[in-house]
Amino acid sequence: MKLSVQPVDLQLKHPFTIARGTRNTVPTVHLTLEHDGIVGYGEASPSNRYGESQDTVLSYLRNVDLSDFSDPFQIEDILHFVDRLAAGNAAAKASVDIALHDWVGKRLGIPLWKLFGLKKNVLSKSSFTIGIDSPEMIQQKIAEAEQYPILKIKLGVPNDREIVKTIRQHTDKILRVDANEGWKSKEEALDNICWLESYHIELIEQPMPAHAFEEIGWVRERVKIPIYADESVKRASDIPRLAGVFDGINIKLMKCSGIREAMKMIHTAKALGMNVMLGCMIESSVGIAAAAQLAPLVDCLDLDGNVLITNDPFQGIDMHGGYLSLNDDPGLGIHLRTA
Amino acid sequence: MKLSVQPVDLQLKHPFTIARGTRNTVPTVHLTLEHDGIVGYGEASPSNRYGESQDTVLSYLRNVDLSDFSDPFQIEDILHFVDRLAAGNAAAKASVDIALHDWVGKRLGIPLWKLFGLKKNVLSKSSFTIGIDSPEMIQQKIAEAEQYPILKIKLGVPNDREIVKTIRQHTDKILRVDANEGWKSKEEALDNICWLESYHIELIEQPMPAHAFEEIGWVRERVKIPIYADESVKRASDIPRLAGVFDGINIKLMKCSGIREAMKMIHTAKALGMNVMLGCMIESSVGIAAAAQLAPLVDCLDLDGNVLITNDPFQGIDMHGGYLSLNDDPGLGIHLRTA
Repeated sequence: MKLSVQPVDLQLKHPFTIARGTRNTVPTVHLTLEHDGIVGYGEASPSNRYGESQDTVLSYLRNVDLSDFSDPFQIEDILHFVDRLAAGNAAAKASVDIALHDWVGKRLGIPLWKLFGLKKNVLSKSSFTIGIDSPEMIQQKIAEAEQYPILKIKLGVPNDREIVKTIRQHTDKILRVDANEGWKSKEEALDNICWLESYHIELIEQPMPAHAFEEIGWVRERVKIPIYADESVKRASDIPRLAGVFDGINIKLMKCSGIREAMKMIHTAKALGMNVMLGCMIESSVGIAAAAQLAPLVDCLDLDGNVLITNDPFQGIDMHGGYLSLNDDPGLGIHLRTA
Repeated sequence: MKLSVQPVDLQLKHPFTIARGTRNTVPTVHLTLEHDGIVGYGEASPSNRYGESQDTVLSYLRNVDLSDFSDPFQIEDILHFVDRLAAGNAAAKASVDIALHDWVGKRLGIPLWKLFGLKKNVLSKSSFTIGIDSPEMIQQKIAEAEQYPILKIKLGVPNDREIVKTIRQHTDKILRVDANEGWKSKEEALDNICWLESYHIELIEQPMPAHAFEEIGWVRERVKIPIYADESVKRASDIPRLAGVFDGINIKLMKCSGIREAMKMIHTAKALGMNVMLGCMIESSVGIAAAAQLAPLVDCLDLDGNVLITNDPFQGIDMHGGYLSLNDDPGLGIHLRTA
């Protein structure tokens, strides 16, 4: 098995602002796994929120030596080995997981959704994310998002209410709110969520800091809008303590270490009676296609990373009218974009 | 997809007694799923403890009409459909799950352990079960079990201590105890387990009735031997309430509805920090081979159902020295036994 890595800077269509800051480009790492004449693709989109960067991913992946493993079918053992090289580094680990799965699907000649016993024709409505912005830019972004039936808006800043009012002046689409830990006290969170309740909000992600379980649970008992964990949950073992605090969790491959861990998380959350959203970072079609294979197992999708960028090296996973469409091609079903 | 069912009465080598009663034969149902020239095998070994019998399985399976599904790859949707036909009936449902998986593995030309990203050469020590019996018969059974490094003994009857003393007179092998809900008060359970602690017992299954969570938790706080749930756990959604009450769970395909649900249970239990045993009913090599595919994911195995019978219609899964060996043949890796 031969791993090769390449830094890829994804260019955003618009500067993208959330409660933590603004970005124009997103530095990622693309990975290929070659074995027996077949190439599997992987991608890491690191987040500094979780201590990763393009550099940490590159150096992590350069230390991955798979010479003890005979072939990529040994996913469980390979990922266990990669996981144990160091804590954290979830995006780096996810790139290996994704490439292994792509390779296996290609070797067997079937798409991953089929390998997982799922189907492709699930009409999965994905949301389209609108970052924090000026009223003028928000209006422009709403217009650009015309084909998407659900919008996800980023809040957690001083002008939250102005943003919501601006959006609601221009659209009556379903809105999801992501506060990205932006509200600092339980009273502030409660006040904001109660205010939001008259604006037809489907769900709210991460109203308060990741470890504020007690405060979030206190808020949740007092509001009607379902509350989802994002920064509060990385991997499956984080989920049990969230039951009773959150209504659902947002699983991201870049946060959890890949498809295999995501599957464990879905099973765990469902057993606990929690809802599951499948989300993403700003990613190319590699990461989005990987997550999309699990779409039939979850309650809501937020897989728009690849439509926010202008230089996706890959194609194969498309959104039409907010519906993600999977194809019949083997593995991830993606291909290098031809010029 | 064509389903065919056939009642098969498995003959026990010895009458098999547990706290609930004695059996000489075990009525099961074997199922074949034919599609596109490939045959997948399934098996249901119903337990009256869970309200099933050969008759209920036959009538359940005769009502399964899969004509809405185009092929067996759609495991998630097919099993969801089969599950919703009626509550319970887990063994009947498991037979469909197993046959679908066998078909998919055969179609792809790979064994199921490989489809699941696992490996076959896990040295999985399985226990061998000794039913409740007279001291003479127990001595004979211990001699017959010479090749097995771990014995599982059935307790929960008035002469428990005589049985344990008899066994310990003849062997110093690792012992697992299964009380099958046989101890009726927490004081009786505590007294028995404390007594057992000097007899080198690895774990104790189901010391008290299935729903005695509070009592079992009380006992567990006072003993050193790990306590596993068996009758207290059927499916994944049962597991969260068991955390803190039991150290581990015993997953059986015939109790949970098949391989797919078993996988969900393993992920859920692991996320909750619980151990997992993979167990069985009295089953032929069909059911045992199905469970064995998941062996690398669990902590201990109790997959001896097929070595307790004399008329296994299938071969392909073997135990040597208590080690289960998987093979490279597609699907379950089993074949009709030739005369």
